[in-house]
Amino acid sequence: MDFALSPELIALRDRTRQFIVEKIIPLEGDPRETPHGPTDVFRQELIGLAKTAGLLTPHASKRYGGLGLSHVEKAVVFEEAGYSRLGPTAMNIHAPDEGNIHLMEQVATPEQQLRWLVPQIEGKLRSCFAMTEPAPGAGSDPSMMLTTAVRDGADYLINGLKWFITGADGADYVIIMARTEDGQATMFLSDMDAPGIAIERNMDSLDQCFVGGHSVLRLTNVRVPQDCILGELGKGFRYAQVRLAPARLTHCMRWLGQARRAHDIALAYAQKRQAFGQRLGDHEGIGFMLADNDMDLQTSRLHIFQTAWLLDQGERCNYESSRAKVICSEAEWRVVDRCVQIMGGQGVTGETAIMRIFTDMRGFRIYDGPSEVHRWSMARKLLDQKV
Amino acid sequence: MDFALSPELIALRDRTRQFIVEKIIPLEGDPRETPHGPTDVFRQELIGLAKTAGLLTPHASKRYGGLGLSHVEKAVVFEEAGYSRLGPTAMNIHAPDEGNIHLMEQVATPEQQLRWLVPQIEGKLRSCFAMTEPAPGAGSDPSMMLTTAVRDGADYLINGLKWFITGADGADYVIIMARTEDGQATMFLSDMDAPGIAIERNMDSLDQCFVGGHSVLRLTNVRVPQDCILGELGKGFRYAQVRLAPARLTHCMRWLGQARRAHDIALAYAQKRQAFGQRLGDHEGIGFMLADNDMDLQTSRLHIFQTAWLLDQGERCNYESSRAKVICSEAEWRVVDRCVQIMGGQGVTGETAIMRIFTDMRGFRIYDGPSEVHRWSMARKLLDQKV
Amino acid sequence: MDFALSPELIALRDRTRQFIVEKIIPLEGDPRETPHGPTDVFRQELIGLAKTAGLLTPHASKRYGGLGLSHVEKAVVFEEAGYSRLGPTAMNIHAPDEGNIHLMEQVATPEQQLRWLVPQIEGKLRSCFAMTEPAPGAGSDPSMMLTTAVRDGADYLINGLKWFITGADGADYVIIMARTEDGQATMFLSDMDAPGIAIERNMDSLDQCFVGGHSVLRLTNVRVPQDCILGELGKGFRYAQVRLAPARLTHCMRWLGQARRAHDIALAYAQKRQAFGQRLGDHEGIGFMLADNDMDLQTSRLHIFQTAWLLDQGERCNYESSRAKVICSEAEWRVVDRCVQIMGGQGVTGETAIMRIFTDMRGFRIYDGPSEVHRWSMARKLLDQKV
Amino acid sequence: MDFALSPELIALRDRTRQFIVEKIIPLEGDPRETPHGPTDVFRQELIGLAKTAGLLTPHASKRYGGLGLSHVEKAVVFEEAGYSRLGPTAMNIHAPDEGNIHLMEQVATPEQQLRWLVPQIEGKLRSCFAMTEPAPGAGSDPSMMLTTAVRDGADYLINGLKWFITGADGADYVIIMARTEDGQATMFLSDMDAPGIAIERNMDSLDQCFVGGHSVLRLTNVRVPQDCILGELGKGFRYAQVRLAPARLTHCMRWLGQARRAHDIALAYAQKRQAFGQRLGDHEGIGFMLADNDMDLQTSRLHIFQTAWLLDQGERCNYESSRAKVICSEAEWRVVDRCVQIMGGQGVTGETAIMRIFTDMRGFRIYDGPSEVHRWSMARKLLDQKV
Repeated sequence: MDFALSPELIALRDRTRQFIVEKIIPLEGDPRETPHGPTDVFRQELIGLAKTAGLLTPHASKRYGGLGLSHVEKAVVFEEAGYSRLGPTAMNIHAPDEGNIHLMEQVATPEQQLRWLVPQIEGKLRSCFAMTEPAPGAGSDPSMMLTTAVRDGADYLINGLKWFITGADGADYVIIMARTEDGQATMFLSDMDAPGIAIERNMDSLDQCFVGGHSVLRLTNVRVPQDCILGELGKGFRYAQVRLAPARLTHCMRWLGQARRAHDIALAYAQKRQAFGQRLGDHEGIGFMLADNDMDLQTSRLHIFQTAWLLDQGERCNYESSRAKVICSEAEWRVVDRCVQIMGGQGVTGETAIMRIFTDMRGFRIYDGPSEVHRWSMARKLLDQKV
Repeated sequence: MDFALSPELIALRDRTRQFIVEKIIPLEGDPRETPHGPTDVFRQELIGLAKTAGLLTPHASKRYGGLGLSHVEKAVVFEEAGYSRLGPTAMNIHAPDEGNIHLMEQVATPEQQLRWLVPQIEGKLRSCFAMTEPAPGAGSDPSMMLTTAVRDGADYLINGLKWFITGADGADYVIIMARTEDGQATMFLSDMDAPGIAIERNMDSLDQCFVGGHSVLRLTNVRVPQDCILGELGKGFRYAQVRLAPARLTHCMRWLGQARRAHDIALAYAQKRQAFGQRLGDHEGIGFMLADNDMDLQTSRLHIFQTAWLLDQGERCNYESSRAKVICSEAEWRVVDRCVQIMGGQGVTGETAIMRIFTDMRGFRIYDGPSEVHRWSMARKLLDQKV
Repeated sequence: MDFALSPELIALRDRTRQFIVEKIIPLEGDPRETPHGPTDVFRQELIGLAKTAGLLTPHASKRYGGLGLSHVEKAVVFEEAGYSRLGPTAMNIHAPDEGNIHLMEQVATPEQQLRWLVPQIEGKLRSCFAMTEPAPGAGSDPSMMLTTAVRDGADYLINGLKWFITGADGADYVIIMARTEDGQATMFLSDMDAPGIAIERNMDSLDQCFVGGHSVLRLTNVRVPQDCILGELGKGFRYAQVRLAPARLTHCMRWLGQARRAHDIALAYAQKRQAFGQRLGDHEGIGFMLADNDMDLQTSRLHIFQTAWLLDQGERCNYESSRAKVICSEAEWRVVDRCVQIMGGQGVTGETAIMRIFTDMRGFRIYDGPSEVHRWSMARKLLDQKV
Repeated sequence: MDFALSPELIALRDRTRQFIVEKIIPLEGDPRETPHGPTDVFRQELIGLAKTAGLLTPHASKRYGGLGLSHVEKAVVFEEAGYSRLGPTAMNIHAPDEGNIHLMEQVATPEQQLRWLVPQIEGKLRSCFAMTEPAPGAGSDPSMMLTTAVRDGADYLINGLKWFITGADGADYVIIMARTEDGQATMFLSDMDAPGIAIERNMDSLDQCFVGGHSVLRLTNVRVPQDCILGELGKGFRYAQVRLAPARLTHCMRWLGQARRAHDIALAYAQKRQAFGQRLGDHEGIGFMLADNDMDLQTSRLHIFQTAWLLDQGERCNYESSRAKVICSEAEWRVVDRCVQIMGGQGVTGETAIMRIFTDMRGFRIYDGPSEVHRWSMARKLLDQKV
């Protein structure tokens, strides 16, 4: 049992912290932040800053130009990156690219990696992941997937409607989940400018931090050759799990940074603002909220660390990543909600970064599986235990 | 003890419900809804609809053209109005005008009423209420007010900085709280185009439902003649209480309508959407949320009714209105948060009205006194009780 | 809409309050309070006090010697009775007799009423209600009932095992739920000293306030003649509903009295005890708990009143009584848990009445249907609504 | 960062687990369990079992016959011991002896250790810690201490009234906190049979797991020679901190064992009991509670581990032990409360161990500092941070 971070990791953490505070936070509020995330031009500028700082795509393997971070190392670095809503974009560790990079490293062929992964790690390409569908298709329940991939000669023809496709607008390539004729799910790779892929509309969303926002994607006879199958036929759901367990955890890490940022702003306010004869924070009603914040932040961090460590040991962590996801998404949300309350009127305005953290974060309790789906999945595993 | 509504009130309720559903909800999403609320042109169109329906400014006295609703009657009608975010604007019962109309009826001189109140009840004028100030001025603690009113001949010269002034942008007149030389607080009336009144900026806010949004107001040597004092000198805080107890309660009513709207949308979705082999609502995890929603809605309604009834009996209800405000603002918020969760991904998008209810309502736990201030005020009264 | 109590009801309330404070509370801690409730001798002494005060069995019809209280009147009087854990026993309104009296008035034949109900209303007899069974029998799910009633000549022979039979030890008669050969449930009446009825053991329980505690009841060829069927054959579950909706609500009323008692003790303590330089209650952390207590108490009261009023209008209130039961059992529990916390070390000792309220009340979230069953029942009804 | 336990620790954990399950749990319900804990004879029998198993007083230094466990090792072993309410008594790691042993090792003179500590570690002596006082003395706020120690020749004469003195009845020696003439607090050691020490009464308490229960202790001219001062004059509060930070944490560990026990019982029940057509646990309403239990258990465990590790690094951990205490006492309580609910009627009876865990554990949110005092202490430290 050892909770110490190595000196190298501490140095990397501090370097990331400094980068975020000095280079990235000053850019918050730049007019190139749109309701559908930073523009691609702005993104390129941010990526340039991270590259200069040696902090671009740090989770990618060293052979592809990353820092080859372990899961525990990601826990430390991604929390720091998340301290600014622009940090993950700058460091190329935002969703869905972060998870796609991970998946492509694990599953893609060398040719596929050369074509898509390598430039993506360099920040030159963006990707999206097309799984969820509107009713009556696959939402929380992936087994309801309606998108089909039908064999046509040496190729597959894909048809379907996807929505909530994060980052689709402006993406260079897409990973599509579709059902082949035997009913199995398979992942396909395609350039986004392939014939038959159309963005029907961009969805108006509560969060504004994802580059490209979220789109409705119409797939009409999209032709995918066999060498663009990602991994093996019929293993789509298995790969989705490969992608999801760590991807859930990196969400926890980045949002922990956002929650800590909100807490720091609220704490500084509670230290200074006077009300009813004393500092705001000297009121127990406020002081208790600050203590609760710290408890929730540290609880999140400990679950992230433990699950990351298990992943580093080679465990699949389906259970633990569900657990960490529920705990972090709910605890971090409580932190941000309390911060809004501590700030009073300012909490519901753009006077500080908290309002945007509030709107950006609410979806975290829903995406990558709502709390209810994870609780149910955990319950079934507990019920299978021998007591 | 009688929980029955009179046949007349039921008829009025049903008429209001029909008006909101048929005339107002179809206008939601009109491009004239801006981040700072409906435009004034749009507002005039909405008001015209309510006037035609005989539902304009129903809380005003009959002699001024209102329906002279009692507090209990308001409870019923305002909940219905609140079912659409545009309903209160249409019926001229939105904040801050609703509370200002109430205050002006109670305190203003006949001349002041003729000049400002009568056209306001007709929907021709809008008003704002300028009390809160940035640090180190009056936020939750009104005793910290820094704005001054200094005698200058027969007039007063007012100087200060106000913020979170709802509806200021486009308002015709303003009620200003300021401190006279003896340290007492007084309310002053002024046209908004008077020299020295300047809107420094409109604040970027989480809510978007208030006409005019929220502004920062600079007051520089604003000259107010004596006959524009509202009520008596030095009674500003007393009148603020006159205004606040019922104003808090009408917030509870309108937001109850919004919470019920969110619940209805989520319930309809839970009745139809399939997941994991059954209707969403057939999952206990979702079904329990629906039950909790109903409990929170009915709890809010009962506290509103009881406090409204007490106000109708002539009680001041400072305690009860604090209690109702805390209970409703927190219970109605829980409802909306659950609805977001039930909707899944759609809950955090503009696909339904819920996302806007979510962003519009969060401030309700803060304005007109955050929960913490009300809890503390309640505690002090309980501690003074003889047990 | 009218929240006023009639002068007669206020007088009755005050008379009950005085009776409880002056005559009953001084008897709390009497050594005849056992782990399985007051002894029968003690019970008789308590009943004598209520008879003298004219407050015995007030919910029974006037023609049987009660006060013929409406449900709303019961709400007021039972809360006062519940202010002492001995009050309901003294006034003969404790569970299960209170509900059994109600059921017997509704359903029993004149002969049955003469034999059992009349002396019960006079406090001379006690009864119990034998429905729940150990696994795999009927617990929360009554449809799983295993106890059988088989026709034998003109009689029925009943066999089965019941548990959690409150008040069985020392009861004079029992209402037995059993399944006849057609699978339908029927209620049967029997003296407790009938051959074949045996108390296997008394259960060790967290609550200690019920006369006779809770027993395991073995039924072995209990012979019941036809004229001891309660109501009609096959209507057992229907009558159980007749009994349950109001019985749930009277639980809410009595426990509200207990919760208010705990709050009053904690409030008095917070007014006097000093800590960290001020009165305990002057700490916001404690003051907020007092405010939350008051909110929970009043919320419970309002739901009780509304549901009682609906019952008085002739409504069946299955939904509303479920709702009130969940709300009250959870809100009143929160009150008591907070009171334990406010009292500090004393809260977990017998220094005040709070510890016993804490142990007596926990079961209220479970019996007469756990919160989960009620939430689910509510959810199904909501899902059947046309939105 | 390393979450692995050493093979030696895993072996010790498994050995302890086996000991508790095979030797101790069968003794639960022994009639020598009284409302004030196991009798001393029963305690000796339990201690004999632990000695035979090589598990007696494992936290004591090896030179005194213990296993010299580090804090992290204690975290593992104490959780296992706590799986039975009799486990800590058997292994001599119950409160207050466990904390007193720790304090005596740190602060006592060799003579004091020989006289009291060595036989205590062997399980032959029991001790108590006399700090808290009834109003207006020291409760949560130790600065209000009224007990005095006045110099009389070479000795001190101690006078005062203490209450909630756990284990006093039957203890062999006592550590008394008293105020000397200069107002400073000092710790004194005395045999319990010294003249002037009288147990006024044993308090009726919710918990029944502590040997000797909780007593009111009257100190009347208790004569203590100088060589029975524990540590240095005037350092009483400092030593109390030395004792408290780890003592809080060992509470967290033992109660974690109790909470896990409750969860295991409830889980086994949810796996078997049928209701409404499926296993209890297959209902989401129950399954979610099981998942929440697991989250709360693991959260508690992680905070215990981290704080224990910090203590092992030589940190004082005042902040972290407060945090862990609040988190564990509240999370473990939620687990037990849910287990009561899952069990239905059985949850509030002695049919399983859960009822006793429920009554034994409630005080944990209060003793060693109620949650409110710890939250406030944390808040002040956060407010002193430079953000």
